[in-house]
Amino acid sequence: MQKLAIGIDIGGQSSKCGVVTHEGTILCQSVVTSLIDSFDEYLTLLANTVKDLVRQTADRGTVAGIGIGAPNANRLDGTIRYAPNLKWARGADGKPGVVYLADRLQEATGLHVRITNDANAAARGERTYGVAKGIDDFIMLTLGTGVGSGIISHGRLVYGHDGFAGELGHVCVEQDGRQCNCGLKGCLETYASAMGVARTAREFLKKDSGKSILHNLDPEKISSKDIYDAAVQGDSLAKEIFTYTGRILGRAMGDFVKFSSPQAIVLFGGLTKSREFFHDDMVKAMNDNLMQIWKGQIQILYSSLKESDAAILGASSMVWSPDEV
Amino acid sequence: MQKLAIGIDIGGQSSKCGVVTHEGTILCQSVVTSLIDSFDEYLTLLANTVKDLVRQTADRGTVAGIGIGAPNANRLDGTIRYAPNLKWARGADGKPGVVYLADRLQEATGLHVRITNDANAAARGERTYGVAKGIDDFIMLTLGTGVGSGIISHGRLVYGHDGFAGELGHVCVEQDGRQCNCGLKGCLETYASAMGVARTAREFLKKDSGKSILHNLDPEKISSKDIYDAAVQGDSLAKEIFTYTGRILGRAMGDFVKFSSPQAIVLFGGLTKSREFFHDDMVKAMNDNLMQIWKGQIQILYSSLKESDAAILGASSMVWSPDEV
Repeated sequence: MQKLAIGIDIGGQSSKCGVVTHEGTILCQSVVTSLIDSFDEYLTLLANTVKDLVRQTADRGTVAGIGIGAPNANRLDGTIRYAPNLKWARGADGKPGVVYLADRLQEATGLHVRITNDANAAARGERTYGVAKGIDDFIMLTLGTGVGSGIISHGRLVYGHDGFAGELGHVCVEQDGRQCNCGLKGCLETYASAMGVARTAREFLKKDSGKSILHNLDPEKISSKDIYDAAVQGDSLAKEIFTYTGRILGRAMGDFVKFSSPQAIVLFGGLTKSREFFHDDMVKAMNDNLMQIWKGQIQILYSSLKESDAAILGASSMVWSPDEV
Repeated sequence: MQKLAIGIDIGGQSSKCGVVTHEGTILCQSVVTSLIDSFDEYLTLLANTVKDLVRQTADRGTVAGIGIGAPNANRLDGTIRYAPNLKWARGADGKPGVVYLADRLQEATGLHVRITNDANAAARGERTYGVAKGIDDFIMLTLGTGVGSGIISHGRLVYGHDGFAGELGHVCVEQDGRQCNCGLKGCLETYASAMGVARTAREFLKKDSGKSILHNLDPEKISSKDIYDAAVQGDSLAKEIFTYTGRILGRAMGDFVKFSSPQAIVLFGGLTKSREFFHDDMVKAMNDNLMQIWKGQIQILYSSLKESDAAILGASSMVWSPDEV
């Protein structure tokens, strides 16, 4: 019997679980809601889903363990710490707290559980099954609602002394810039995420002469998808918004290169669907912020994995190689 | 007979060579000038010095190899590339070029030669013999004429795909800020180095009401030592210069933490002699630029090794553990 792994991708809205072969085929998957207030209830739901998946694939192989990618997850102690977007991860005071997800799920399922943050899981997924196959040094940037990152150096994820390395979404790109949920100002995530692009749109709309079709929308409800759709229709304000985003992102990427000198930067997440409108500005800004030795040398790759699959695959890959990527 | 290693610290003015025991005792050392135009001549001088050192210590042990720390040195191919401050490393056109130092010195001495950049060598020195002993995740910042860096992650130096990782002196800290020798603008090195502090002094003196004793000096010749001496005498402009420097350095350090989450940042180099005047502002600015999980958590350490010894020790340690720190 072949060995199988369960990969779980936990997001603020839902948690996706899949049974994955060593070769990266997802045999079956289930989605459960993350919108539960009680950790115990969420855990029961998740554990039952895992048990169902194990039963469903019992004739195909034996599940060897569980890998989880989740926001604010810490590989070293198996906790999720202070995740603002996970309802069930709050303390008695209603504020984001600390939950021992890995230990508790292990108890509930009898399967060995490993956990890492969602961007690290995505980086593992790309290296094991995606565009970063065979690349020993790369930086993964996940451009979703926020900006996450996973850094691979010498073929290994960089965890730092406490498991929290790779918070590039919170590098300061504008001094005294936009207020971020993390408490700091000017974080990359407040500009180069779906949320950031919407903020840029609201700022730009205030100064715009009124020609943009984006004026037809409620500025408080505007989404990066709306801006993409407008750009596709040739709306010049929408295009400017992406140009601005690309320049800030590219400049930040230049500074990231000076840290770990990656062969490639891999981009992933919802915002990359709009890449036709920011790619060139981003690459130019990155190279403008690089010394001669690196200008034109750093590859920009876009994830080739289906977004919903990448995180499950990456999380599951921890079962095969717990310490290495 | 015990095994010995030769460590060489190459700087723009001079090259220091020492014979080091496994325990980190420098048995003897020699200094040769780096102010030679011809690479062949420099190489002959360096090789002869190495041979002399081998002879001098022949009764104490056998030299097992040579480790070199040098600006712009690349571990992967043994070259020095485009080092603006090394006279003998220029091409036929007089511009900084590429020299195969490791291979040539190996030919000339018969000893195995390993090379890395000077900040990486200093980081190795601290981890093997200094304040970073036993620390698996730290960032070394060398605050000298410029700013260099060496990043240790999971106990290993981060080299990146091309050997050039760790150029934190060229991370942009001020958009469209001061022009740097590297071609970029606003690099950390243009603010938080001996050279940077002198530039700050010249800028501040222009705006100053004239009370500072620094006005007695030729602004073009002012040095970080002059500013330190003035601060010791209570000069408030001199103190402001260090406050400004500390704030910029600390803010940058906060962003570095978000990358590799080090247990400590180790500071080294001439500017650290003035630390009484910038340490508190630097630490505050770093913590102000950190998320809750890291505030107050990152140790700041100052090198305990004699400056001239640290680089020799670090370079020599490559002989014992070529791939690991």
